[in-house]
Order: sequence, then structure tokens, then C-alpha cells
Amino acid sequence: MKCETITGLGEGNGQKQENNSEASHNITPLLLDSWKPYKGTRANVKERLLKLRDCLESVCGIQWYGFATLGILTAVLSFLMDFSVAKLLQAHLWLYGKLEGHILLQFLCWTLYPACICAFASSFSHNICPFSTGSGVPEVRTMLSGIEVPHYLSLTNMFTKFLGLTCTLAAGSTVFLGKVGPFVHLSTMLGAYLDRLCRLIQGKKKDAGTEMMVVAAAVGVASCFGAPVSGVLFSVEVMSSHFALRHYCPCFFSAACGGLTFHLLSAWSRDGETLQALFKTNFPTATPFFPLEILLFALLGLLCGAGSRFYLFCHRWILKFTKTNRVFLTMLTTEKGLYSGLVVFFLALLTFPHSAGQYLASKWTTKQLLTSLLDSRQWSSQSHNASVRLELDSLEWSSSGAPIFLSLAFFLLMKMWMLVLACTLPLPAGYFMPVFVYGAAVGRLFGEGIAYVTTGRDVLGQQWTSVNPGGYALAGAAAFSGAVTHTLSPALLAVELTGQVTHAVPALLSTLLANALARSRNGLSFYDGLSISKKLPHLPSLKKACPQLPSTPLGQVMGVKSVQLQKAAGPAEVQSAVSNSSEAQIPVVDSHAEAESCFFINWMIIAFVQRIEGRLDEVCSIRPNSVVVSPHNTVQEAYNMLSVAPAQTIFVADRGKLVGQITWSEMKQILVGLAKDI
Amino acid sequence: MKCETITGLGEGNGQKQENNSEASHNITPLLLDSWKPYKGTRANVKERLLKLRDCLESVCGIQWYGFATLGILTAVLSFLMDFSVAKLLQAHLWLYGKLEGHILLQFLCWTLYPACICAFASSFSHNICPFSTGSGVPEVRTMLSGIEVPHYLSLTNMFTKFLGLTCTLAAGSTVFLGKVGPFVHLSTMLGAYLDRLCRLIQGKKKDAGTEMMVVAAAVGVASCFGAPVSGVLFSVEVMSSHFALRHYCPCFFSAACGGLTFHLLSAWSRDGETLQALFKTNFPTATPFFPLEILLFALLGLLCGAGSRFYLFCHRWILKFTKTNRVFLTMLTTEKGLYSGLVVFFLALLTFPHSAGQYLASKWTTKQLLTSLLDSRQWSSQSHNASVRLELDSLEWSSSGAPIFLSLAFFLLMKMWMLVLACTLPLPAGYFMPVFVYGAAVGRLFGEGIAYVTTGRDVLGQQWTSVNPGGYALAGAAAFSGAVTHTLSPALLAVELTGQVTHAVPALLSTLLANALARSRNGLSFYDGLSISKKLPHLPSLKKACPQLPSTPLGQVMGVKSVQLQKAAGPAEVQSAVSNSSEAQIPVVDSHAEAESCFFINWMIIAFVQRIEGRLDEVCSIRPNSVVVSPHNTVQEAYNMLSVAPAQTIFVADRGKLVGQITWSEMKQILVGLAKDI
Repeated sequence: MKCETITGLGEGNGQKQENNSEASHNITPLLLDSWKPYKGTRANVKERLLKLRDCLESVCGIQWYGFATLGILTAVLSFLMDFSVAKLLQAHLWLYGKLEGHILLQFLCWTLYPACICAFASSFSHNICPFSTGSGVPEVRTMLSGIEVPHYLSLTNMFTKFLGLTCTLAAGSTVFLGKVGPFVHLSTMLGAYLDRLCRLIQGKKKDAGTEMMVVAAAVGVASCFGAPVSGVLFSVEVMSSHFALRHYCPCFFSAACGGLTFHLLSAWSRDGETLQALFKTNFPTATPFFPLEILLFALLGLLCGAGSRFYLFCHRWILKFTKTNRVFLTMLTTEKGLYSGLVVFFLALLTFPHSAGQYLASKWTTKQLLTSLLDSRQWSSQSHNASVRLELDSLEWSSSGAPIFLSLAFFLLMKMWMLVLACTLPLPAGYFMPVFVYGAAVGRLFGEGIAYVTTGRDVLGQQWTSVNPGGYALAGAAAFSGAVTHTLSPALLAVELTGQVTHAVPALLSTLLANALARSRNGLSFYDGLSISKKLPHLPSLKKACPQLPSTPLGQVMGVKSVQLQKAAGPAEVQSAVSNSSEAQIPVVDSHAEAESCFFINWMIIAFVQRIEGRLDEVCSIRPNSVVVSPHNTVQEAYNMLSVAPAQTIFVADRGKLVGQITWSEMKQILVGLAKDI
Repeated sequence: MKCETITGLGEGNGQKQENNSEASHNITPLLLDSWKPYKGTRANVKERLLKLRDCLESVCGIQWYGFATLGILTAVLSFLMDFSVAKLLQAHLWLYGKLEGHILLQFLCWTLYPACICAFASSFSHNICPFSTGSGVPEVRTMLSGIEVPHYLSLTNMFTKFLGLTCTLAAGSTVFLGKVGPFVHLSTMLGAYLDRLCRLIQGKKKDAGTEMMVVAAAVGVASCFGAPVSGVLFSVEVMSSHFALRHYCPCFFSAACGGLTFHLLSAWSRDGETLQALFKTNFPTATPFFPLEILLFALLGLLCGAGSRFYLFCHRWILKFTKTNRVFLTMLTTEKGLYSGLVVFFLALLTFPHSAGQYLASKWTTKQLLTSLLDSRQWSSQSHNASVRLELDSLEWSSSGAPIFLSLAFFLLMKMWMLVLACTLPLPAGYFMPVFVYGAAVGRLFGEGIAYVTTGRDVLGQQWTSVNPGGYALAGAAAFSGAVTHTLSPALLAVELTGQVTHAVPALLSTLLANALARSRNGLSFYDGLSISKKLPHLPSLKKACPQLPSTPLGQVMGVKSVQLQKAAGPAEVQSAVSNSSEAQIPVVDSHAEAESCFFINWMIIAFVQRIEGRLDEVCSIRPNSVVVSPHNTVQEAYNMLSVAPAQTIFVADRGKLVGQITWSEMKQILVGLAKDI
């Protein structure tokens, strides 16, 4: 424990004096350890560093450099990962191509490569850091709502997650998992480290706030696709109940830095590509869509909403199944590597291009798949007329000569259960991009159908010459992924990814309707399901799973009475209170001689107290401001109050008597208790 | 006062019984007034209406129909206004064209038409509803932060604002004012009415929340331009400190309805136009910009930030000047119509096409002006080479043969002070669009300069063949308007208006840097300046103007002690307390016999109490939950707590003794008091 004497502070100048003590802290962390050698040189270097810091601070606060660094570093990580994954996928396809003619070798190459990679990723992440598996978004959401989740921000986790995710992505379209979720998590870990660094440079000793994490959530999405605006909207959406406006500018700033770096790296690495949208499309600009098509977009939204409910049902079922079935349970707890290897081998068996894979476009990467689905040209007419058949697009989708509708329907049918199965893999992996592509395929099938039916016909007096199936694929992708995650930002993401602003309104409409269907009757989102399955203390998910839960009165769920001190307490009492309490602050109550039941908190001790002579209120800096609620207030109300309360502490008093104190750690205990009941 | 007996409620089933009483309310509002004729028919109609309501409610909550209606109606209003303004402007130009050759008549036509229109709008709005002048955004911001501003949501105001705004816009580029701000206000008024309607249909009697207003703020921007996403971002930004996530989906839903209706109306009204972006641009897609141009965009952002500070300084100066100068003060208080007429006549004198107007492109509407500024082709090279000179674009900008740079610089110089002068007009008018166009002109000048310098030269080894000045105009528009209003949504608005997603990142970067410069050293935004000049109780503005103000302890600024009741109070005490208090709720304190200083609030009466027999706690429904703060808490803290407190009431207790109660109306008084000090 540290030894600090605390001078008595008046009530008014508390703030001021705090600033002064901050200023005196500024120098200490860099000039400590005076016993080390090369005193002169070190002092010189440190002085220059301090000057540099002052120079930097004169432009803007240190944390802004932190935000910029966060954006840039995340984008560099994202680019590095994309680069390595591309090389690994290329190597796989090269090998597969070289073995042309030897079907057995080709088969082994096709199946063993992803199986080995995934088995490795699984055992690696299990052994180094078991918390690195999965998407990480449910944990990030919990942390953003103010509750600490241990182990999820460690450096080991970051390293493991990065390597594991690269392996997962290198398994390609066989495993068909994405990178968004883990990237949000990676960026949060990076943010936590940069936050500590900024605090070290500033010489602040306060606890880390959630600001850097809110920003990091935005940067994760922004750097993944170079889409800053949807990144910020994602960050707004994952915040539990209130988005604080002071985070708005940092979010945009960091996301813009990340997006810019991502675009610039792409532009500089590949000579041909410039600063365009990631999935560039060539939608016709003259007539993006006919007014009446709006109704079809709405119908597509409802279709995607229904599809998402089915997917979520299957996902929850398999989550439950793996937790109750004995074989799965044993495999998943003891033999993670083997399980991953077997499942991926089975999936690869199906996607092998000489078996069912020929209908699944399995040779394509996720990016190629999405680009082909978003193509504005009509496929069905191309299939009709062999002379205008386009080599690139139709090659994979109807390589066996099967009609395009059958091919797409088979793709949808197979990918649904394959995706649900892949979600059980104990790997670092994202579940957003697959749903996005799946939605695009749903939209494409719908759009191709519309185009086939309307070509050359009059629809209510209008000649629908060229219905664009790519537009439906865009809206479908946004609607399906939005419905699965219960968010609206995919609509904007789809626009930012493709550069089609004209389709923003239809995509938004489809996403809204899909969301309405997915959320009806307290439907759980994908992340809610994971949160509840993992028993995370995340209030909004608990609320959806069991709507009456957050209105439990506080008195029913509160823990033991907290340590408290009398205002006139002597040294011995303070000593024992400090040794009994693990908190940095202890409530001080003011008792009036006669009234036995009349305790009331008005003060709090700011720091650990060790050496005390005289009365408590004479020696200690005591904060007189406090927020008090009653035990009859609900958990939800206490939660809301806590998120805006000064010093992040609220007191619970029943008829004037202090019965407890709630900080985020108490709130976490309460929520964990509630989560157990579900 | 209404006569209601209140049955005694246990503490637990308060919520339930409330729901029951709501259910019984459901039928009453529609089946009252039984003395009117045609009982049978009316009963029949009402029954069908009730069935319709139940039918509607089975799909989704009534308020969702309200949101949709709000979006659609606002878009229709916006479209109607655009339509009438276009006709009025056309009529003016037609008349002006007919008078070709008669320069005196042309002069009279040019000057008197807008002067008369504006004089009419000014006197009309002054006489019908004096609160309809100006933008309305400062008042909307105040209302969104929870504080009521009377007269600003009345039907008269809506009517006056609509008509007045149409007149202002019909004065065209002479007055050079926009429609965004007033439209946000109009949409808020519409929202308030729809909210009441929804509550009537639902049979709820509760006070209106701010939900509909938050949604309306988003819809205002969305319907103005058909840009739903930036509308929602605007709504997030104008919320005072925390954006509640429960408003997120309604905002998007309503904004999407509004945007869609606006696009569809545009598509159906003009045969040629389809569902494209409002200001369609043809930026080259192959190379949107070179990587190094990012630095130039950043520089432009800083330039716009500096420009915005100058503009804001001028604006604040003229606000102060009109309040202190005796001539202006007399004119603005007594002769508003005359003042408007004179100022507009003076402005028209300058924009007369045969005088300085020839350099100001004064024959163009705001839309034409913006479209020409966003043109991707380089003007300076066209001016050089007469053979490729484009008729349309250069005609207005350099009709006198003056070089394009001089023309643009003159435009910027003149428009600055003309705009500042126009801001003093007592008319319903928006101040966003002019700044947006001004910023586009700044960006255009910058971009033309860059294009002129770099054409055909090597820049760090790269051949910058075609720098796009339109891209700079886009970024400049976003940056300048963002800096003036201290918001980031203009960056997205610029993208949505033009459909150029590739320029999203540069525009965002410019806007961020411009904002950083504009916000540095507690710079006030345009709306903050208006708020403070109008002494509105808006805490974030007050905080910017005087940063130490919100940390005033609550005890210093609180009003008189509120009425309170003992728990064991008899009928007479309750009677007198009810007649002394204007609030719907009265705090009830629990006193312990011996301890004199030991009052403590634990309960609140829910409704007016009239007939009481027996003790208070036996007859009345008393809510046991409460939030208590101390008088040492700051105003800012109390404000934050109030915005999340259950029942929107917090109590102030000093050492266990109730010293006051804070609701939004008390908070308003406190803030008005603070605003006076500035």
C-alpha cells in the first residue's frame, strides 16, 4: 500500500487542489528511479521528452494523439491481416491448381489445408489464451456498459486473437467466417493499452474511463472496411443505453484516421487500385430503381427478417445442443483442436470443387463472392443467351450448367446449416461478414427472380427495362445482417462498402423492416444469445431475455452492507475500516447524537488513509457530494443513475439509514446474480 | 381541478394497477359527450374506429404510425414549399426577362420583388406569431434537453413559419438564406401534434416525452434533402449530452419514411428526374483523388475553420450591435417590416445583374449555385481555352470576362458581410444552407488554385493529370458548415446530397479539422451564440460561454423550499399543501418523533388528492422510490441525474433534511438564472 498523507481540504477548492496535485504528478513518472546509471544522459533525454510532451500538448490534448494512433494502428493491423490472408489463400489455390489431374491429391490438399490450419488455430488459442475464441463483441458490449470483464483486454489475448483470426480467415470459404467482430475486440485491446500509455504520459493516475473503448469500437469497424461513418454508428448502437456526446468527436476522428490509413495502404500496396470503395459496383446512375420497386425492397426486408429469425433459432439451438450433448461437450472442453479439425474437414468435404462445391462457388474468397453478388448485370438473361454470357461471373455460379436460380437456392440451403455448424468452432472468428454475404445471396435470388419476371413487361403502365438485381443484393445484405445483429448500421455499411448512395434509402427501409420482424416479441439478437449463453452481466440482453428482470427492486438483490465510517471517527476505527474495505473510497456518515436511526452519508474519503491523528474530518479530504437512491428503486433505474453519477458511486439509503453503496463492481455482482436466474 | 378518488395501493402492484387504469381510459375519450345527437350512428362509427385502432395496434404500437406519418407529412410540406418557391422564383425571372431592354423597370423588378416579399413575411410573422422568426434550432435544442420553451410548438407558429419561410426562400439569392433550421422547427411542431394525437388514440394521459421531438429533429433534416442518415446524426448531435438508444430506431424509421417520400415526390413530379441524389455530380470514379491530396484537404479544413471563426465573430458582433445601437433597436422592435424591406432592397441593389450582381452569379438559385460549384470540370482551364469553354457553367461565373479566381474571390468577399447582414432580418429563415454554399465556394477557389498550379506538373514523382476542384468544393462545404454549427453531420450530408461516397473520408477529415479549430478555446457555435443572445436555458451553450458555471453548487442557485407533507398528515394539511403547490406530485417525508432534523423523503404522491379521510399513507398511492442529491452537487451533475431519474424528479437533502425538489421546471429556473449572469 502506498503511503500518502492527505491534507485537509475545504469544500470549495477541492477541484482546484486536485488540479495542482495533477500538475505535480506530471513530472514524477518520468524522473523516478534515480538510482539507475547514466544519470546525466537520462536526465537529458527525459528533459527532451518532457519538452516534446509539452510541445505536443500545446496543439491538443495527449489523448487526441492516442485516438489518431489507435485508428492508424488498427488500420495497419487490418491491412497486415488482409495481406497475409490473401497470400495464404493464394498459396492454397496455387497448390490446388498445380495438382490438376490428380484428384486424390487435390482432395487432400483441399480438405487437409483448412482442417490443419483451423486445428492449429484452435489449440493455439486454447492453450495461450482461452478467452480469445469467438467474436468478442458480447464482451466488448459488456465492457462498454461500464462493467469490467477480466482477461479480455490482455496483451496475450491480443496476440492470440490476431494469429488465430488470420488462420481462421486463411481457411477461406470452407469455414466462411469473417473478421469484423474480432477486429472490434482487437481494437478495444489496443485502445486499452494506448489509454494507459496516454495516462502515463499525462501523469494521471486515475482509473481508465470507457472513452477509449467507445472510440475503439468505432475504429474496429472503420478500419476493417475503411468505412468511418458506419463504424461510428456501430459504436453508438452497441453502447448499452445512452451514448455520451463527448465521445462523438473522438469516435469520428479516430474512425476517419483508421479509414484513411486503410484506404491509403490499399492504394499504395496495389498499383492499380485507387481510393475507391472496397467493393466497387457499377450500378446504372440514370435510373437507380423505379418508385414501385420500393415495395419489393420492403418485401425483401420482411423476407430477410424471417430468414434471420430462423438462423437465430438454429444458432441458439446449436448453442444449447453443444452444452447438453455429452459427446460435443467432452470434445469442446478437452479436444478443441481435434473438434475444429474434424468439423472443418467435414465442411471442406462438402465444398470440394469436384463434389457439391461446384454449386457453392467455393473457389472464391468472400470478397470475390460479394463482388459477384453485387454485380448489376442480370445473370438469368446471360444464362439464356449463351453469346452474351459473361465469363467471370457465371463461371463459378453455374459452372455445371445448372440454372442460376437452382445454384443460388442450393447455396442458400447449404450455407445456412454449414454456417450454424461453423459457429460452434472454438476459434477467434467473426460472424458478421458471413451473414452479410448470405443476405446478399438472398437479395440476389430475389432480385434475379424480379428481373426474370419483369423483363420486357409492363408493370402498372411502366416499362421496367432494366431491374438491377445487384441493388436487391445490397439491400438484402444490409437487411439480413442488420436483423441478425439487431442493428441498423449495416445499411450504411453496405452503402459505404459499395459507394452506392442512391440505394441508401431502399437499403435502410429493408433493414428497418427486417429489424422490426427480428425484434418483435422480444427476439434476441445474435450477440444477445451469446451474452446469455455465456452468462455475461449485460443488462440490455438480460432485459430482452426476461423483460421483468430489470424492474427487480434494488433491495432484493443488494449484497452485504458496505464498510462505513463515522464523521468523528478516531484513528483506530479508520484503520480497521481501511483494512476491511477493498475500495479506494469509504463512505463517511454523519451521525446526530440522539437519533439512533438517523445516519446519512454526505461525504466520501478520496484516498487510502494510513496515518491519522486527530478526527477523521479534520485530516482527510472529504467530498460532500453524493447521490442517494432508495432500496425500492429498480435495478434498471440504479443502472441508469450509476452511468451518470459523479465519481461513479451511488448510495442506497432506507429511511435515512445507509444500507449500501453501489459502484460498477457491485452492479456487476448484481447482474451476474440476475443472469444466473435465466 | 379534476375530481379523482385514489384507491390505496400497495407498494408492489403500483405498476400493474396503472396499466389497468390505462386500459379503462382507452375507451373514454372516444365515447364521451353522450348528449350529442345521432347516438346510434356515432356509436357505430366509434366502434369501428376502436376496431381499426385495435387492428393497427396488433401490427405495431400506435406511435410507430405516428413516426411514419411525421416523416411523410414533413416530406410533403418540404416538397410543397420547394414547389411554391420554385414557381415564385420562376415568375420573378420571367418578369425580369420580359423587361429586357428597360433597365429601370428591370431594376425595380429586381429590387422591389424580394423587398416586398420580405417586408410582408416580416410583418406577417411579427403580427401573427413573433416566435416564428429566426431558425428555431436553438429553441429546439433547448426543448430536446428537457426544458419547456413556451409558444414554440403552437399551431399558429407552424402556420406562420411555413408561410414566412416560403416568402424568405422566394426572395432567392438576394437574401441568400436557407430552409434547414426552420424545417427542423416545423417538423418538431408537427411531431408535438402527432404525439398528442397518438396519446389520444392510445388513451394515455401522461405528459408528452421528448421522444417524438428527438425523432422530429432527425426528420427535419432528412425531409429537407432526402438524406436520412445525416438527419439522424444531426439529431444525435443536437441532443444535449446523452443520446438515448431507444430513440435510435424511431429516428431512422421516421427519417427513412421522410427521405423516401421526398425522393418519390421528386421522381413523380418531374418526369425526367429519378431517384438520384439531390445534387448529382459526375466525379471521375477511376481516381477520385491522389493520396497526397489528403494533406491539401486537411489544409482546406483548417482554412475553413479559420473562416468560420471570422464569420462567427462578425455574427456575434452584429447581434450585439443590433441590441445596443439605438437606431437598429428601434427599427427592430417597432418597424420590423420596414427594416426587412430596406435591408433586402439594399442587398438587391448589390445583386442587381447590371451592377455587382454580374460577379455574384445572382441569377442563380441556391441549387444551381451549388451544382455549378460541385462541378468536377476545371474552370480555369476552360477560361484559358475559349474553344472548350462550357456555356452553362462559365456563363454566370465569368460573364463579364473576368478571370474565374477574381470572380470567386469577389463572391466570397461580398457574400460574407451580406450574409452577416441578412442574419439580422427578423424573418423565419435558415442559416445552414448559405454557409454550406459559402464553404463550397471557398473549397472551389482552393481547388481551382490547386488544379491551376498542378496541371501538367510532377508532384513528388506523380503526374497529377486531373485534380478535381469539385471534390474540394464538397469538402469545403462540409468543413465550413460543420465548423460554423460545431457539428460533423454536414460531412455525411455532403456525401448524401451528392452521392460521392469516395469523398466521404476527405470531407470528414476537413470537417474534423475545421471543427477542431472552431471549437478551440471554448469557441461558441452559431447556435450557441443565438442561444446566449436570447438567454435560453440551454446548459451546453452556457457551459461553453462560461465553463465554470455548471460547477456551481446546487445549494447556491436553488429556489424556495418546496411544499412537503408528513407521512401521517391529516386531511387539512393535505388540502392546504395541494392548494399551495402547482405540481402534480408532492413529496411526502417520514418523520421520526424525537429527531427534529431527521426528515427524509421516501415517498411521493402520484396524483392530485382532494377528498381524504384518514391518514395520508392509508389512502394514497405513494411511490417509494426516489433519488436524492446533496446541495453540494453541481448543477451539471444534477442536470445529468435529472435526465435519467425515474419520474423526472430528484430531491435535494442536506444532512437528511429535505431542502428542495428539482424537476425540469425548477431546472429551467436555475438555468435562466445562470444565463442572466453571462
